Formats: sequence, C-alpha cells, structure tokens
Amino acid sequence: MPRIMIGVMGPGAGATSEDLGAAYDLGQAIAQQGWVLLTGGRNSGVMAAATAGAQRAGGLTVGILPGPDNKEIAPGVDISICTDLGQGRNNVNILSATVVIAVGMGLGTASEIALALKQHKPVIFWQPTPVTAAFFGVIAPGQWHSVQTVTEAIAQIQAEIISR
Amino acid sequence: MPRIMIGVMGPGAGATSEDLGAAYDLGQAIAQQGWVLLTGGRNSGVMAAATAGAQRAGGLTVGILPGPDNKEIAPGVDISICTDLGQGRNNVNILSATVVIAVGMGLGTASEIALALKQHKPVIFWQPTPVTAAFFGVIAPGQWHSVQTVTEAIAQIQAEIISR
Amino acid sequence: MPRIMIGVMGPGAGATSEDLGAAYDLGQAIAQQGWVLLTGGRNSGVMAAATAGAQRAGGLTVGILPGPDNKEIAPGVDISICTDLGQGRNNVNILSATVVIAVGMGLGTASEIALALKQHKPVIFWQPTPVTAAFFGVIAPGQWHSVQTVTEAIAQIQAEIISR
Amino acid sequence: MPRIMIGVMGPGAGATSEDLGAAYDLGQAIAQQGWVLLTGGRNSGVMAAATAGAQRAGGLTVGILPGPDNKEIAPGVDISICTDLGQGRNNVNILSATVVIAVGMGLGTASEIALALKQHKPVIFWQPTPVTAAFFGVIAPGQWHSVQTVTEAIAQIQAEIISR
Repeated sequence: MPRIMIGVMGPGAGATSEDLGAAYDLGQAIAQQGWVLLTGGRNSGVMAAATAGAQRAGGLTVGILPGPDNKEIAPGVDISICTDLGQGRNNVNILSATVVIAVGMGLGTASEIALALKQHKPVIFWQPTPVTAAFFGVIAPGQWHSVQTVTEAIAQIQAEIISR
Repeated sequence: MPRIMIGVMGPGAGATSEDLGAAYDLGQAIAQQGWVLLTGGRNSGVMAAATAGAQRAGGLTVGILPGPDNKEIAPGVDISICTDLGQGRNNVNILSATVVIAVGMGLGTASEIALALKQHKPVIFWQPTPVTAAFFGVIAPGQWHSVQTVTEAIAQIQAEIISR
Repeated sequence: MPRIMIGVMGPGAGATSEDLGAAYDLGQAIAQQGWVLLTGGRNSGVMAAATAGAQRAGGLTVGILPGPDNKEIAPGVDISICTDLGQGRNNVNILSATVVIAVGMGLGTASEIALALKQHKPVIFWQPTPVTAAFFGVIAPGQWHSVQTVTEAIAQIQAEIISR
Repeated sequence: MPRIMIGVMGPGAGATSEDLGAAYDLGQAIAQQGWVLLTGGRNSGVMAAATAGAQRAGGLTVGILPGPDNKEIAPGVDISICTDLGQGRNNVNILSATVVIAVGMGLGTASEIALALKQHKPVIFWQPTPVTAAFFGVIAPGQWHSVQTVTEAIAQIQAEIISR
C-alpha cells in the first residue's frame, strides 16, 4: 500500500501571515501522524510553510512542481516531482493526495479545490471565509468539511482516511 | 496570425435549461462574428449547446477533449483535440482561448475560470449569481466583467480583443 | 464528425533541407485533399514548412504548442492550441491526428512516433533511414508503413483513413 | 536539497525475463546506495520488478502512474503520484529523475528515453541491442552511456550525479 499523503493547498505570494502560521502547524501535525505531506512544491507561501513544518517534525515531504526542474523548489522538499505542466500540475496535486486541505484562498487554490471536489476527493477548508463557504456550498453542497483548529483538522483527516 | 477563439465554459450534466439556451445563443453569435468557438468538446451541457449554436451559424468549432479519442465528442465539433489529460485539459481550454466566457457554474467551470484569471486571460461571466460574483470578486477583484445579454457579451468580447 | 487531421511530425532546428522540402510538399498535398494539417505549431523546421505548404494550398492548419501562448507560433497556423505542457504536448499531437507521418527524425519526433505506435495510431515514415526502419521494425513490427513520394504518402493516408 | 531519484524505465507486459531480473537487481542496488527509485508505477514488467528490488533493500520508491488513482499500482510503491495524464506522464517520469536508466526497450520506453535525451537528462542503457544503440547513436550521439553489469550501472550513475 502506498503511503497516505495529505495535500496542503494554499496561496503562494498572496498568503497571509495567518495562512503561513496555519500551514506550518498543519505540516508539523501531519508529519507527526506519520503521513506524507504533499504540496505544490514552490518556495512560496503555504507550500513553503507547510513543508517547513513537516520537515521540522521529521516528516517526509513531496512537492509537485509546475516547472521542468528544481529551480523554484521549497527547502525541505524531499521528493521533487518536476511536471513541466504549468498550472496543469494542479490536477496532479489533488489526484495524488489522499485528503486535501485548503489553507487560505487564491486563484490557484480555488482551481485545485474545484478539481478535487469534481473528482470526489475528500476536501477540508481551514477557517474558510463566509464567501468561500457560500461559493463551494452552492457548487459542492455537503461534499466538504471546515475546521477551525489543528486538532480538528487532524481528526477530520483521520475520519476521511477511515471512511475511504 | 492565428484565428481568434472564444472559449465558452460551463457545466456538462449539471447545466440548467437557461444555461443551455444562453450557450446556444452565444455560440451562434460568436460564429456570426467570424470567431472560432472553443469548448471542452464533450456531448453534454454547455459544451454541446454552444457547439450546436455555432454550427447552426456556419462557424468553425474546436473541442478540447479530456479523453484520448473522439468517443465523447459533441456533434458539430470540427476540430477535435484529444488530450488524454482528464481534467488537466481544463488548463489547455483556457490558455487556447483569446477570451473566456462562463455560462453557468459548476466545479469544472470554477476550475477553468480560476485558472484563466490566474493566468490573466480576459474572463466574462454570463449572468453570474451573487455568490459567484462575490467569490471571484474577492479572489480576482477588477479582473473580470459580467454581462446580461448576448449583445453585451459580444460587445465585451470585442473590447477585450481590441485591448489585448 | 470532426474533420480528418493529418499530423506531420519532424525536427525543428535539426531538420535538413530535404526534410523541409518534403514537409512543404506534404502540407500542400494534405490541404489539397481537404484534410486539416496538424503540427507541433512552432516556427521551426518541419512544423513551419508543412504549415507553409498547407497555407499555400488554402488549407486549414492546427498547431499544438508546448508553451502557454502564441510566442513561438509558425506563420500560417490558423488554430493555435496553447498547452503549456512542454514536451508533454507531444502526446496530444499524436492523439489528435487521424494519421501521423514522420518527416525526418530527431528526439522529439522519435518520442511522438513511439507514443503514436504505442497507442495504435496509423504511422507513416517518409523515406526512413535504415537505422530508423530497423529500430521501429523491432519495437513495432508490422505496425507502420514507409513511403518515398508525395503520391505514395497521400495514397497511404487514404488507405489508413478508409481502414479505420 | 531534494533526494536523488533514479528512474528505471522499461517495458511493462513486453519485458523479457532478463529485463525483469536486471530491473530487480538494479532496484536493489539503487536502494542500497540510498537513492530513491522512480518508475512508471504500474504493476507490470520492469516497473514492478525494479520496485520489488528496491523494496527488498528497504529503499524508498516512487511510482508516477498514468491513471487518476492507485488501481494499477505495483506492490512496494511508497509514494504514488496519480497523474491522469495517460502516456503524457512519461515526460513527468524523466523530468523527475536525476538519472534515467533504460532496461529493455519498447514503445513507452523509447518515448521516455527520447524525451529524456531531448531535455538533456543523463541516460544510461542497460545492455542495449545493436539496433537500439544504432538508433540513439544517430539521434543523440555522445549523449548517453551503456552498461553491462550492475556494478557498472551504479558507477555510471554516481559519475552522472557528481558531474551535474
């Protein structure tokens, strides 16, 4: 059986400091559970913060990069997948994750979450804004969960893994 | 110079009858302008309706399919691009369109519009719901237009083409 | 029914003058048959020469580009598909072609022909060298034809189209 | 720094028993060097044999699958990348590998090696046939090495890693 991989998706340059803190904490907690962390791999925003958190906890990290090489890679990525697919790599991110969690929201993240829900991946929103919750509530009602704390996030991920 | 292609994006099975009517009318109007119609190519929903409208007006139509062959193709598609990329083809759809117009909203459409806005493609929403307008208003403020009629849509497409 | 598209594959910068002449003549003959010409779309080598030939004959031309935009496009491409897949677009080229013909040989062309044969596309080699014929004779015996003249090429394409 | 990944590429169903034995031995030796093994991930031929060898030696294994899920996965793959790119995933395989080694030859393998050489990846052929050596000798002269034994393969991989 391949290892369980938890995808943490979120903005790069547009991430807020709250997003970065949450991503770091989630990366750390994911690694502490023995799960592999999967991100978009670039040295920016939520991808870099989650990777740093997982690395701190001694976890294994995977980065699925948009480019053909490691030029943009975040420090702490162990397994680098160089796709040269540009934004087309977003679909690889979510298909490869056992569970997807969105931390913050931007255009790339919105595309990933929409692709994940379309393909029936378990999706968790970290502290979604009312606007985000309303939008995905209309186009994917009942298909996702939201969480407020790291403890809740880990519990929800565990529930998703068990119910597969 | 390659021909101008207008991408009409919208739900497949989840399209409403209003979506289908609008897609047909837009396909027809796009063809009447001499533009090529580009869709996701499948014989379903907005893709099929827009293609039928363009075909009715004698226009040229392109379908960018998720599968490796023409099994799912909408009648009326002239140029069939078989990608075998699954939902990864959504990025090809929007990169190949000069202007993207969303008719209706679903998970596939949301991913396409998010990818289009992320890569600075001109995006037009056909009669967006308040929830859709609010969501994309937050993550892509000032980056898109909404239209209510076919006449408005054609005028906005013309404006986008001129301002490239 | 979508239109029949004939894919002419061959080297870019590495094309010989014989390759370029043959690509031009084949592009012209393909257009004269009423078929759509499909190439990798770049303004280089066999892609550009075949497109010029088809354009000269008033045919419709499709270019499937590796990049996200039209920066590299050959003059004469009517329908530009911007994939941003890098060399991953080679698989889209051959899946979208009804019949594939290789003019000249290089690394990109070799990848396309191998992908085409693997997925059971009709493949024709234009004047293959003994080394090329020997290699594909071993890994795809009886799966392809070779031709020496434009007349032979058109006849073989017609035979492949009929036998689909 | 991401971990060094060695890509072992070779036929699935068409692999010979010699190919399978070599792939197993190479997978084992790669893992013993502390390198990550990368394959196309399917439970077939060279992919499965190399993965089994690496697993036997306690190594970490990555499989880059053509499908959207783990249905076809080889036992022993630790990190499963689900691309849904079909044969388009071949480009991801070779871009993600630090060094690529071909064991046996078939159409998929030919496409991977051609893509690898086109994008200047270090390529090693395991006991190439004269026909294979002649073909790649013409289209990529001086760009690859051939090896006859596992010891030679490991030495050549080490040389490629050092000379990056």
